[in-house]
Amino acid sequence: MMNSLIKLQNKPAILSAASVVGHQEHEGPLGDYFDMHDKTDKFGHNTWEKSESEMQRRALNLALAKIKLTDKDIGCIFAGDLINQCISSAYGLLEFDTPMFGLYGACSTAAEGITLGAILVNTGIYERAAAVTSSHYCSAERQFRYPIEYGGQRSPTAQWTATGSGAFIIGNEPSDNGLFITEVLPGRSVDKGVNDVNNMGAAMAPAAIDTLKRYFTESGNNPEMFDIIVTGDLGAEGYGIVLDYMKKEGYNLDNNFSDCGLMLYDRNRQDVHAGGSGCGCSAVVLAGFLIDQLNTKKLNDVLFVGTGALMSPQSIQQGQNIPGIAHLVRIRNTKGE
Amino acid sequence: MMNSLIKLQNKPAILSAASVVGHQEHEGPLGDYFDMHDKTDKFGHNTWEKSESEMQRRALNLALAKIKLTDKDIGCIFAGDLINQCISSAYGLLEFDTPMFGLYGACSTAAEGITLGAILVNTGIYERAAAVTSSHYCSAERQFRYPIEYGGQRSPTAQWTATGSGAFIIGNEPSDNGLFITEVLPGRSVDKGVNDVNNMGAAMAPAAIDTLKRYFTESGNNPEMFDIIVTGDLGAEGYGIVLDYMKKEGYNLDNNFSDCGLMLYDRNRQDVHAGGSGCGCSAVVLAGFLIDQLNTKKLNDVLFVGTGALMSPQSIQQGQNIPGIAHLVRIRNTKGE
Repeated sequence: MMNSLIKLQNKPAILSAASVVGHQEHEGPLGDYFDMHDKTDKFGHNTWEKSESEMQRRALNLALAKIKLTDKDIGCIFAGDLINQCISSAYGLLEFDTPMFGLYGACSTAAEGITLGAILVNTGIYERAAAVTSSHYCSAERQFRYPIEYGGQRSPTAQWTATGSGAFIIGNEPSDNGLFITEVLPGRSVDKGVNDVNNMGAAMAPAAIDTLKRYFTESGNNPEMFDIIVTGDLGAEGYGIVLDYMKKEGYNLDNNFSDCGLMLYDRNRQDVHAGGSGCGCSAVVLAGFLIDQLNTKKLNDVLFVGTGALMSPQSIQQGQNIPGIAHLVRIRNTKGE
Repeated sequence: MMNSLIKLQNKPAILSAASVVGHQEHEGPLGDYFDMHDKTDKFGHNTWEKSESEMQRRALNLALAKIKLTDKDIGCIFAGDLINQCISSAYGLLEFDTPMFGLYGACSTAAEGITLGAILVNTGIYERAAAVTSSHYCSAERQFRYPIEYGGQRSPTAQWTATGSGAFIIGNEPSDNGLFITEVLPGRSVDKGVNDVNNMGAAMAPAAIDTLKRYFTESGNNPEMFDIIVTGDLGAEGYGIVLDYMKKEGYNLDNNFSDCGLMLYDRNRQDVHAGGSGCGCSAVVLAGFLIDQLNTKKLNDVLFVGTGALMSPQSIQQGQNIPGIAHLVRIRNTKGE
């Protein structure tokens, strides 16, 4: 295979980010880091799909407002979500008068959009680009499993789809201080035979391992170099698999490996089983918490690995496995070497 | 808004393309131009979704085989389709060991993937990239409308989802002869209030108009310069709207405007109502017919405008309109000025 690591020499940066979350995410350990929440999870709308769209609209508006820009100042938007035909993005971003590239990367969409946005800004084609994604517990439950009114029992390895939207403005950062996207490594789909829809973490773990191994091999970097290596939504099951397997392969992640799905909720206090999931999970943990930590120099060098499961209820009914994919983005708060 | 026209100075080219179609498309006026067909539309599989995946697998394999390449020789794949969670692409392309960016651009996906592939190749990030998409009449009917067994009556403005997959290999063309992608212009979503799911052409026409007007304004080019200006799948309804509206705006498209949805079938002989639609429609007309015409110099300068409707059955049930989007790609068989 061709090398897949892409070094972004012109150091495109995350100029701004915003996060909009539901009540469960606001009540979690990272609650104070998010820009906006609605304790009803409805965001003023009467269907969950419209509520999810509204989160995207607000997240992008907020991200733009923080740096006093409007949709006229961004060259394009990369956006996608989990809902059939990506309607959360289609309707949520309608008011933005900006060319749009629709994505489908399942829960890896934040990393996929940031990757493409960073590449396009790095080349100078756009001065600025946006990446937006979302998920909503209630819209995802009724589409992928059962309507919440049914009160279905969840298995211990099941995850909780995060209600949240994250938006990122990527652009040329003229100063030496900023949140630079220095490297990206796009994921490839990996199928290791997992077909349990109540264990998405296990299904996605092989893709995260594939991406991490390719990254360390191609970059020559060691895991110890990073303040945090953080996957998108593997939850407790997938997290353990990656930790164990990487150790067997000679990579010790004991000290700096985490997962957005484990960070977003307090599993002792909140009934989210194996942890958070969904496009919104990694998007809001990055937009809210990780970017704050990078800005305040509590973290300086972050490997963000967005993970996604490329399946549908129909593909499972037809006996298919659950392939995973994982896109890697490295974010630093200095220009580096 | 920032300028949206992107001129690709390094002239990335379509090195290879392949098309796989169903029986109806094979029996249409362009039937002889397609590489492969299956008169059962099943492609050896027992569900329509798996049949659609198989078309993608074959199309990409064929496109690679034509220029004696394998998946090891392409840097990334852009792929998407109409089926929930884009499973046609996810499963169809699993065997290719290549980083993948999943797209959702509805029926505009061929143009969206070629746009992004051409940009990435132009910048030198990848030597080669692939763009793949598909649609299947039977998988689309049962997802968006009724299972075909129901025998539902269709309205005159309804379109026929094409059974087909197109794959494109984009790369640096060292010679002066080749099919160069000289300009791209990404679409923005446009909602003019159309909400009739049986008239997608009318819903997508405003997006095609928006993209064409931006192109002619920003490029300074006239419609007369092109051998053909071809939209993806507006069908008879949308085609007429674009032709009339553009004329009122001062752009005469009388002599060189066509639509892949009108070219793919013979509406006098084949019962496809307003014409073809679906991701596969524009993909196979470009991969099969238009690229042949460019190679044989029967056409020299083509404006290809992929059109898509960003809706779902659920969004329609919730009273939403149907926004459209249209991505433009200019393809020439000389390097031009």
